[in-house]
Amino acid sequence: MRIGIIGVGTVGSGVVEIIEQKRDEFHAKFGVLLEIAGVVAKTEEELAPFKAKGYKGFTDAMAILEDESISVICELAGGYDLPFKWITKALENGKHVVTANKALLAKHGSEIFPLAGQKKCHVLFEAAVGGGIPIIRSLQESLLGSNVESLSCIINGTCNYILTRMVAEGLSFEAVLADAQKLGFAEADPSFDIDGIDSAHKTAILASLCSGRFVNFENIHITGIREIAAQDIQFVQELGGVVRLLGIYNRVGDKVDARVHPCIVPSEHLLASVKYVLNAVYLQCDNLGPTLQTGAGAGKLPTASAVVADLVSLARSIETGQREPLPMGWFQKENSADLVPIGETSTRCYFRFVTKDNYGVLAKITGILGENQISIESILQKNTHNKGKVDIVVTTAKAKESSIQAALAKINALPEISEKSRMIRFLE
Amino acid sequence: MRIGIIGVGTVGSGVVEIIEQKRDEFHAKFGVLLEIAGVVAKTEEELAPFKAKGYKGFTDAMAILEDESISVICELAGGYDLPFKWITKALENGKHVVTANKALLAKHGSEIFPLAGQKKCHVLFEAAVGGGIPIIRSLQESLLGSNVESLSCIINGTCNYILTRMVAEGLSFEAVLADAQKLGFAEADPSFDIDGIDSAHKTAILASLCSGRFVNFENIHITGIREIAAQDIQFVQELGGVVRLLGIYNRVGDKVDARVHPCIVPSEHLLASVKYVLNAVYLQCDNLGPTLQTGAGAGKLPTASAVVADLVSLARSIETGQREPLPMGWFQKENSADLVPIGETSTRCYFRFVTKDNYGVLAKITGILGENQISIESILQKNTHNKGKVDIVVTTAKAKESSIQAALAKINALPEISEKSRMIRFLE
Repeated sequence: MRIGIIGVGTVGSGVVEIIEQKRDEFHAKFGVLLEIAGVVAKTEEELAPFKAKGYKGFTDAMAILEDESISVICELAGGYDLPFKWITKALENGKHVVTANKALLAKHGSEIFPLAGQKKCHVLFEAAVGGGIPIIRSLQESLLGSNVESLSCIINGTCNYILTRMVAEGLSFEAVLADAQKLGFAEADPSFDIDGIDSAHKTAILASLCSGRFVNFENIHITGIREIAAQDIQFVQELGGVVRLLGIYNRVGDKVDARVHPCIVPSEHLLASVKYVLNAVYLQCDNLGPTLQTGAGAGKLPTASAVVADLVSLARSIETGQREPLPMGWFQKENSADLVPIGETSTRCYFRFVTKDNYGVLAKITGILGENQISIESILQKNTHNKGKVDIVVTTAKAKESSIQAALAKINALPEISEKSRMIRFLE
Repeated sequence: MRIGIIGVGTVGSGVVEIIEQKRDEFHAKFGVLLEIAGVVAKTEEELAPFKAKGYKGFTDAMAILEDESISVICELAGGYDLPFKWITKALENGKHVVTANKALLAKHGSEIFPLAGQKKCHVLFEAAVGGGIPIIRSLQESLLGSNVESLSCIINGTCNYILTRMVAEGLSFEAVLADAQKLGFAEADPSFDIDGIDSAHKTAILASLCSGRFVNFENIHITGIREIAAQDIQFVQELGGVVRLLGIYNRVGDKVDARVHPCIVPSEHLLASVKYVLNAVYLQCDNLGPTLQTGAGAGKLPTASAVVADLVSLARSIETGQREPLPMGWFQKENSADLVPIGETSTRCYFRFVTKDNYGVLAKITGILGENQISIESILQKNTHNKGKVDIVVTTAKAKESSIQAALAKINALPEISEKSRMIRFLE
């Protein structure tokens, strides 16, 4: 199987390495030959080491997209517009596609998958979500005997690294972020990760696979982790939990509840054991019960390893046999999931109210919560600040999000409240 | 795809249920039709509910094994001899096989897989190891871009249930076993589970898949959990760990180290979070890094769900396309793995010596350990028994198993030792 690789940065060069390592093994075992027909990079400089090893290198992707001898394109460049053009062109030319680009699939999947269906081409993307976790193949094949009722995932290594260190070391968000940037665990501009965008891309893809309907990531609620303070981490620990940024999917009758926000996970829950840059996907299925898969979420070789497994699977489907592509044509806007608006969801909640003076303020807060049909489960009051500021931590029974937001707006407007109140939802 | 089901006990009836549930969905999604052509049971009584629903029922498996319209046999009866005959017959007649029978595959896989290879038939067995965990497909397909360096698995729900309750409730092995039997979590004759035989069957299959060589379960070291006492659980907790029965695979150069025995797992390790009847497989792979999959290990619907996923995969391979079976012909005695004898393995160890009187005995024990090149890491001495008996708990640095056994024999022969000394290995 002749492969064209577009993008030979971290992941792309890892794919070349692993193919070199294991090509003979794959040939002996499966009778398939993974042949790198050409690599594409932006500059001749990037191409040089590959050309030195005898590979054909191009700075124009068209050279491989128009090469009829090439049957599969590996898109590992990242970004939106160019990859979308390349993949569209590849499919139009009848080439199969393997990609690790979750942002692209979240944004343009609804155009890519129907085109692939029309052209009877495979589009494989195991590496796009949780590189070291074979969750895509699990959802597409291994778990077919069950319906996924709900999914909770830790799917962004940067956020999980920051939150884990905040718990372990009692540091502030800002301090850990700065250190994570120094150590290479966070980007110079970390907003894509810490604001939950990356998690939302992946959650949208997973929610689509779980529901069999297109879940548009633009329509799902996203809250990142910027507003999680060291005090919150500590209070949550006292309540027997840890904070994790979760991607969430719930099947609610015919509707889909999909969102990304920080969650309080009980310490004994498996997701609480998923630390630092590890990713994890926790599923609750009707027939199968609960299941968790955890592993590396990113990194050169874990991601490349997933790409290579897709290439072998593809080669087995098109070289030594003819297996139909997995039907993904349903992944399109016309088949959009009916999303439950965030305001209609219900969760147990943690609030932290910072008050100037607690004389009478607790009565006002609990009064407002009561007016909004929010039942209180526990109250914890601590003078953890200087200058007479008091933290009041309230946990609630399950309450409707719209009521929670209404109560928060009223409470934030109280003259006794000295900074924006914090709210974190509990994992169901 | 016409399916013959042999065995309609717990799992078999679950398979029928799920096929009824999801047949239309599979047809709409993949264009495959799962058609139950006949069911086989021992008695007419067992067949009655299936016949009442309109299925053809037989008390003689030959009725479906000789039916040319049937292309796949689902073997869900359990046991060794008859299933081996049925599966051999099915393969000889060119029928594909889906089975959940790990004992059979561990014992006769080396005959079944080569025959299947010869006949170009698929043999799928996701349900045979960790029903709710798609570990077989992961090893066969998703993780192909990596080599598995080591595997540790909790693969027997009965043992994990007993050990978890011993930790949580401080009870003795005997007390928890009796209660587990009452609650249906342990068989009336529990030896197959608690002596580690079932774990060894599954570990042998997993070790074979990891190494690409046949690992004969008869040759792997097995220690069960009968000798784990409540005191050991408690001492191990004080050392920061929990006891789990693990199936272990390590790649050691060209050799394979495979064994089943209790292990001390550090409390912060993911495997320590796997509690009660949950199963888990923890892998360390070269390119992929560490990964863990956990889920239900047994039970009607989790196991049936895995069987049905295999049936859909098979239907996609033989009905709407022609995909070659995964090559499993290597799973035969001629391709046996070179096993590392248990005596040549090395681990850190926990010992508990029960002494009549500790006057001078500690010097003797530490002397014997020293003579056998076993370095001591910690010593804990507690008078936990009545009648002047003293527990001496020693943990060691990595030591060779043969030295450990030599030292244990000498120590057990000391007149001051009042019961057989206990030894538990630490997870690497």
